[in-house]
Amino acid sequence: MHRTTALPISIAALLRACSTAACAMAAPTPHIPPPRELLRPLAVPYRLLLGPGPSNLSPRVRAAGSQQIVGHMHPEVLQVMEEIKAGIQYAFQTRNRITLAVSGTGHCAMEAALINLLESSDTVLVGNNGIWGERAADVARRLGAKVHELLKPPGEYFTLRDIQEGLAQHKPSVLFLTHGESSTGVRQPLEGLGELCHRHGCLLLVDAVASLGGVPILMDQQGIDVLYTGSQKVLSAPPGISPISFSERAREKMQRRKTRPPSFYLDMSCLASYWGCDGEPRMYHHTGPVSSIFCLREALAGLAELGLESSWKQHQAVCTRLCQGLQDLGLELFVKEEAARLPTVTTVRVPEGYNWKEITAFLMDKHSIEISGGLGPTAGKVLRIGLMGHNATQDNVDRLLQALRDALQHCQHSRL
Amino acid sequence: MHRTTALPISIAALLRACSTAACAMAAPTPHIPPPRELLRPLAVPYRLLLGPGPSNLSPRVRAAGSQQIVGHMHPEVLQVMEEIKAGIQYAFQTRNRITLAVSGTGHCAMEAALINLLESSDTVLVGNNGIWGERAADVARRLGAKVHELLKPPGEYFTLRDIQEGLAQHKPSVLFLTHGESSTGVRQPLEGLGELCHRHGCLLLVDAVASLGGVPILMDQQGIDVLYTGSQKVLSAPPGISPISFSERAREKMQRRKTRPPSFYLDMSCLASYWGCDGEPRMYHHTGPVSSIFCLREALAGLAELGLESSWKQHQAVCTRLCQGLQDLGLELFVKEEAARLPTVTTVRVPEGYNWKEITAFLMDKHSIEISGGLGPTAGKVLRIGLMGHNATQDNVDRLLQALRDALQHCQHSRL
Repeated sequence: MHRTTALPISIAALLRACSTAACAMAAPTPHIPPPRELLRPLAVPYRLLLGPGPSNLSPRVRAAGSQQIVGHMHPEVLQVMEEIKAGIQYAFQTRNRITLAVSGTGHCAMEAALINLLESSDTVLVGNNGIWGERAADVARRLGAKVHELLKPPGEYFTLRDIQEGLAQHKPSVLFLTHGESSTGVRQPLEGLGELCHRHGCLLLVDAVASLGGVPILMDQQGIDVLYTGSQKVLSAPPGISPISFSERAREKMQRRKTRPPSFYLDMSCLASYWGCDGEPRMYHHTGPVSSIFCLREALAGLAELGLESSWKQHQAVCTRLCQGLQDLGLELFVKEEAARLPTVTTVRVPEGYNWKEITAFLMDKHSIEISGGLGPTAGKVLRIGLMGHNATQDNVDRLLQALRDALQHCQHSRL
Repeated sequence: MHRTTALPISIAALLRACSTAACAMAAPTPHIPPPRELLRPLAVPYRLLLGPGPSNLSPRVRAAGSQQIVGHMHPEVLQVMEEIKAGIQYAFQTRNRITLAVSGTGHCAMEAALINLLESSDTVLVGNNGIWGERAADVARRLGAKVHELLKPPGEYFTLRDIQEGLAQHKPSVLFLTHGESSTGVRQPLEGLGELCHRHGCLLLVDAVASLGGVPILMDQQGIDVLYTGSQKVLSAPPGISPISFSERAREKMQRRKTRPPSFYLDMSCLASYWGCDGEPRMYHHTGPVSSIFCLREALAGLAELGLESSWKQHQAVCTRLCQGLQDLGLELFVKEEAARLPTVTTVRVPEGYNWKEITAFLMDKHSIEISGGLGPTAGKVLRIGLMGHNATQDNVDRLLQALRDALQHCQHSRL
C-alpha cells in the first residue's frame, strides 16, 4: 500500500528489490490472529433427521465421504461419473443422453434448469402451490423471462384442467411444477401432463427434490422434459450435488438459444461435454466435487440394489403407518385427499393450544429427533415429518410417534 | 400418457379412481433395469495428487467427511458456519462482515463475485495472462457487462504500470486479477493495486483459488475488495465449497444495484443473510452442503493451528527445493523471474523429445503420482506440479523428483 505513491515504479522492480534475504525477513505478518473457536475439536451430536431433509447418511455413503480423493479428471473418477449417469437414468427412468449431476444443491439444479431453458424472450408458467413454485418464479424473473403463475392454496395440487387452461391462456414455452411439495406435503400427479404440454408446444419441467426415489416417477413415459432432484433426501447422501436430466425436446430448445446462459458454471452445453454426454471427448469445465461424486455414486448404488419398486413401496408403507399413528394421536393431517399426500414428507397441523417451536425443540432436546415447522405458506401452521431413504423405516415411525406422544403431553397449552 | 385423451377428466378423478387396492397393484413398473456397473463396489486407488489440484485430503478432513450430518439450520451447524467465517477472516486476513463460503467449487465463487458486482451497465477490466482471466471475461460477457482485457503472454504478470494504463483507458468499475495463475504458475504481485484501483474508482477482485494459504495475501491491508478461493488446494478439503469475502466498498456497490443478480443461488444479499453476516436473524436460503461445511471447518482449523506464516514459509521452502531439483534434472522452469513463481504450482517446460502425456502417464502408472500437463495457453508446453497444503512436504518433493528422473529415463525421444 505504502508503495503506490512511488508510481510508475513497476511491480517487477518492487519484486526484484524484494528478492533479497533482507526482504524475505520482512515478509508480511498476519495481524488477525487465529480464531480461538477453530482451535477446539469439531463436535457434532447424533440426531435422527426426520424433517423434510437432509436425511441421515447411509453407512456406505459415510464411507464414501471419508474416501481419499483422486483428481477430478482421473479415469477412475470419469468411470464413477459414468456409473452416476447410469444410476440417474435408472432412478429417473430415462434414456436421455443429457443426464448428469450439477455441482450444487437442489436449488442449484433448479437454476440450472431455468437458466438453460429460458431466454428473456420466453414465457414460463409456474405452478405455485408452495415455496418451490415461488422460488422458480423468482429465478425466472431474474432471468428476464415473462412469468405467469398458476396459484393453488397450500395443500392442493394442479388438475389437468387447471393446467390446460393455463397453457391455453399464457402459451408458455416451459411449465414448472413441483412433484413433491415439501413445504405442504403435496404430491403433484404427473399423469397426462407431458402429453398435454407437448400438445401446447410447451416443455414440462419438474422439481422432484423431495420425491425422487420414494415416489413413482417415470421421466420418459410421463413425457417430462427436465427433471432434477437433490442428493440429501431419499438418496441419503450429503447435500451438494444434484442429478438432472434433459429430454431431446429440451436439448433442442437449448440448441436454438440466441443468447448464452448467464452462467458458465451451469451452462448445460459445457456440463454435457464435461460429463461425456455428447459423444465427444470430455472437456474440463470445473473441478468436480470429487467426494460428493463418490457419495452420490454410493447413494445411487444403494437405490439400484434395493430397486425402485421396493423403495416406492417402502416409502408408501412407512408413510401410511405414520399417517395412521398421527391420526391415532388425535392430530389432523394437512393434506385432505389421501392420494395427494406425499409419501416422503408428511404435514400435520399444529394442534390447537400448542406452539410448534416447543414441540420441535422438545423432540430435539429430549429425543434427539429432528422434525420441522412449516415453510413459506405453511410457516406456523404445520409440522413437517420426513421419512426418506435410509430413514424410511417402520422403527423410525414408531420411535417418532412415541416421542411425539411425549411432546404432546409436555408441551400442551403453551402460549403461541 | 394414455389418459390424456380423456380430458377434461381432472387428475383428482384419476387419483380417486386409483385409490383402490386394484389400482395399487397396477402401480407403475420401472422399465429401465438397475445398471450393472452400480452393483459393483466402489473402488478408488490411492494417488499422490501433485497436480494443480485437488490435493490429497488431510486425515482430519477425511474424518469430517464421514461424520454423520445434522440439519443445515441446526444450532450445531450454524455454530460451525460461524467458525468457518472466523477461519476465512483469518485465512484472508480481513475483518469484512460479508465473509462466507458459497456452495460450489472455485469457479462458482468466481461467478458469485462477478454476478453480484456487475450489472449490464458496468465495465470490467480483466487481466488475462492465463485461463482464469479468460474464464472471468467469458462470465462477465454472459452477464452483459462491457469487458476489456489486459493481455499478457502466459508466464508473465501485470505491472502496476500496465494496470494504471488500463484503468485510465477503460475506466472500469471492477478489475479482475488472478493471484495464483495455476495454468502458468505465475504469482501476480498485489502490492499497491488496491490503492491504485480505488484512486480510479474501481474495485479490486482477486482470484486466489490456487494460492490462498500458501502465498501471503492480506486482504484488508492490500485493499482487495473481493477475494475468493477454493477448498481443494492449500486447504486440502474436497472441492465443492468456496470461501469468499466482500469489502465494505464492494458491499456498497452491491447495495446500489438497480437490477437483481440473475441468480438466486449466488445472490449475496440472500447468502449474507443465510450466513448471518448482516446482524439480522438468519434466513433459510438453500440447503447448505453440510458435509462440505464440516470438511471446510476442519481444513480452516488445520490452517489456524499451523499458522499462516508457517504455512507460507513451508510452501515457499518446498517450492524452492522443487525448483532446484527440477533444474538439477536439466529441466527449464516456465516462469523466468524467480520472484514471480507461484509457490503452490510450479510449471516446467516439457523437455524436447518428450511427449508430456507419456510422462504424466508414467508417473501415474509406475509411481501413483499425479502431475498435470498444461491448460489453456500452456497446453502441450508445460508440466504442472502442485505442492499444496497437506501435500506440501519435502518428502513429497523428493519422491516426485525421483519419479520424474525415472520418467525422463523411460519416456525419452517419444514422438509428439
